[in-house]
Amino acid sequence: MAPRSPTARGALAIRQSNLREHNLGLVLRIIVDASTPPSRADIAATTGLTRATVSSLADALIEAGLVTELPPVMSQRAGRPAVPLVAAAGTLAAVGMEINVDYLSVRVIDLAGRVLHQQVRAANFRHSDPATVIPELVGLFRTATGAVDPGVQIAGAGLAIPGLVDRPTGPVRLAPNLGWRDVDVAKVFRAELGAAQLAMVLDNEATLAARAESDALRAHGPHTFLYLSGEVGIGGALVLDGSVFGGRHGWSGEIGHTVIDPDGPRCRCGATGCLEQYAGKDALMRAAGLDVSLPIEQLQLAAAAGDPAAVAAFAMGSRTLGTAIANAVNLVDVETVVLGGLYAGLYDQLVSGIEQVLQERVLAAPWSPMRVRAAVVREAAAVTGAASAVLSQVIDHPSGWMHQ
Amino acid sequence: MAPRSPTARGALAIRQSNLREHNLGLVLRIIVDASTPPSRADIAATTGLTRATVSSLADALIEAGLVTELPPVMSQRAGRPAVPLVAAAGTLAAVGMEINVDYLSVRVIDLAGRVLHQQVRAANFRHSDPATVIPELVGLFRTATGAVDPGVQIAGAGLAIPGLVDRPTGPVRLAPNLGWRDVDVAKVFRAELGAAQLAMVLDNEATLAARAESDALRAHGPHTFLYLSGEVGIGGALVLDGSVFGGRHGWSGEIGHTVIDPDGPRCRCGATGCLEQYAGKDALMRAAGLDVSLPIEQLQLAAAAGDPAAVAAFAMGSRTLGTAIANAVNLVDVETVVLGGLYAGLYDQLVSGIEQVLQERVLAAPWSPMRVRAAVVREAAAVTGAASAVLSQVIDHPSGWMHQ
Repeated sequence: MAPRSPTARGALAIRQSNLREHNLGLVLRIIVDASTPPSRADIAATTGLTRATVSSLADALIEAGLVTELPPVMSQRAGRPAVPLVAAAGTLAAVGMEINVDYLSVRVIDLAGRVLHQQVRAANFRHSDPATVIPELVGLFRTATGAVDPGVQIAGAGLAIPGLVDRPTGPVRLAPNLGWRDVDVAKVFRAELGAAQLAMVLDNEATLAARAESDALRAHGPHTFLYLSGEVGIGGALVLDGSVFGGRHGWSGEIGHTVIDPDGPRCRCGATGCLEQYAGKDALMRAAGLDVSLPIEQLQLAAAAGDPAAVAAFAMGSRTLGTAIANAVNLVDVETVVLGGLYAGLYDQLVSGIEQVLQERVLAAPWSPMRVRAAVVREAAAVTGAASAVLSQVIDHPSGWMHQ
Repeated sequence: MAPRSPTARGALAIRQSNLREHNLGLVLRIIVDASTPPSRADIAATTGLTRATVSSLADALIEAGLVTELPPVMSQRAGRPAVPLVAAAGTLAAVGMEINVDYLSVRVIDLAGRVLHQQVRAANFRHSDPATVIPELVGLFRTATGAVDPGVQIAGAGLAIPGLVDRPTGPVRLAPNLGWRDVDVAKVFRAELGAAQLAMVLDNEATLAARAESDALRAHGPHTFLYLSGEVGIGGALVLDGSVFGGRHGWSGEIGHTVIDPDGPRCRCGATGCLEQYAGKDALMRAAGLDVSLPIEQLQLAAAAGDPAAVAAFAMGSRTLGTAIANAVNLVDVETVVLGGLYAGLYDQLVSGIEQVLQERVLAAPWSPMRVRAAVVREAAAVTGAASAVLSQVIDHPSGWMHQ
């Protein structure tokens, strides 16, 4: 029931002042997102723009090194062969980065989606000091940008953080498992790098991982799902029609702090009995009597060998995950749950326990069966999403990268 | 990152085939939603349509009895006096209806928002039979439509149900506190009434109550909030920028089935330990040792008199509500919670307990303090929202009500 006038005014503003910029972004977006490379005629048909306008826009994008032509293909119909257009490889790239409890991760991805460089460094950042962590990350950034071909322009850096981030460039408010509070990470990063003008996008790690998953599912779906990212902490994101739902401040998705038992163990967030204390990596390892710094595969091996504590750890993890997911699904009515982060690799251990709770607790389940699936993006999801977020800004406003 | 082509195609379709229908709806929506009655010139400025086009559309809406002119007012500037336009009163109305556990409710509302008739009948529909309840509702519908001026056209009927409804006209899937499952309420209602063509909109009672609240807050906000509707069951709805978020099937908002304690009492939904079993009306009454069929005011009187069981009932209710709201807010990142239904009248008993839990559990609370408020629509919220849903269909497609 909101008045429609803002939309009408928005459309008007585009018509009058920045039509070409808008249409350049529209054409580039169609080319980047397409599952089959479109021709100029395809884009004209999709957008309603004239063939001549599309050709002019496409030529400008090619000239700027953002789009490339593939060899012409003969169509079934008569006429000139169609020239498929694809995003250019090796011309423009973004650096995706992640600070998490157990590691730093960096990945350089170009507009065509090619990974030009990547590195993961194991670490232990529980109760860490930003003043020592951020310089380490700057070192990885320098190595990464030094490793790619000098002809590749770097559009900017995206950074994934396990906590609440004022989007897209503001301070990290709270990263409970790092022990960080009110840290202006972008400012410290830029100062340490000596690059005050570096374009940066900061966001929550689960939000960015969900973005990467949504990108990967664009062609075949599902496009609407609840995403869980299991690490030491548990992040989440709600993806609706291909876009991550951010909420009022971009702080949505904190499913890791769903209350399992108010009398339960103290959580790093300050409250008690949060899901993370039952199904996060450290909680699972502790329940199985394993050192939290060991890799999660140790827990899988112990459970596979029939170790009762390890089996019980997975039972507790899947039951509590099921409870938190059921609460969320009853509230937001999605039918697909995607298990990401460590949970993608733990799918076989977790899925039946989760599904059993959903069957018992999701009101809509008898009419719309829930689907629980493992994420298709297994490796480096958050850094991939972080690079995607930066590249998306270029795609929406390409003229900054065009010499015209 | 979803491709934009569907939007572009949608816009194109409007331009080519049904421009006038679209613009009639646009102009009527602006007039109905405006907090200050707009003139033709105001509407032209807002929409970007020409003054001549707006005049033609407004004249057609006036001719059809959907819009009325107010006396002209002189503007500060030179020129003709402006004629404010408002939605017409007493020409077109909708019947809002609600079936709930303790009552049936009916309200007739016209396009100007005036209540032309209303009636509430107390009842006890726990474990009830649709075959006896629906004829009772038909009786109330007949009384209501018989009571309004014969010159008022009835656009249709909206019906609020405490459960999952296939929106907008399909069967009721599950209404746990009525004991209903897979009941095609609209079909039975139309057959009993002998009006196969009656336009009907069915939806969840909390969804429709939240719609009424959102309508009432349109001028001054907030426009984004989590709405809770406390009755025997507990419904909820997420309102984003003035619109209720429906989810995949329109089944969102089931916050009443948030898990408080998996080992808790059996819920009418079949699961155990749901919020309704701690904070729903029957649960509160039972905890205080009162008969569930007594009005809630008995519990307030007992608590005010210092009865320990009544005080403990409110403490339990507010603590468990706080837990469920904290889970929801951490997931969807809203900062305003609106207490509706019975909870609006229990605000003073509940608010401090809820706020205390939110302070402890909402991760974002230190940076964005939560606001808990009582609903402004206290009476008949769901039936008001049900009538609004029907009238909204007329507003979006007014030409069905125009003789042109």
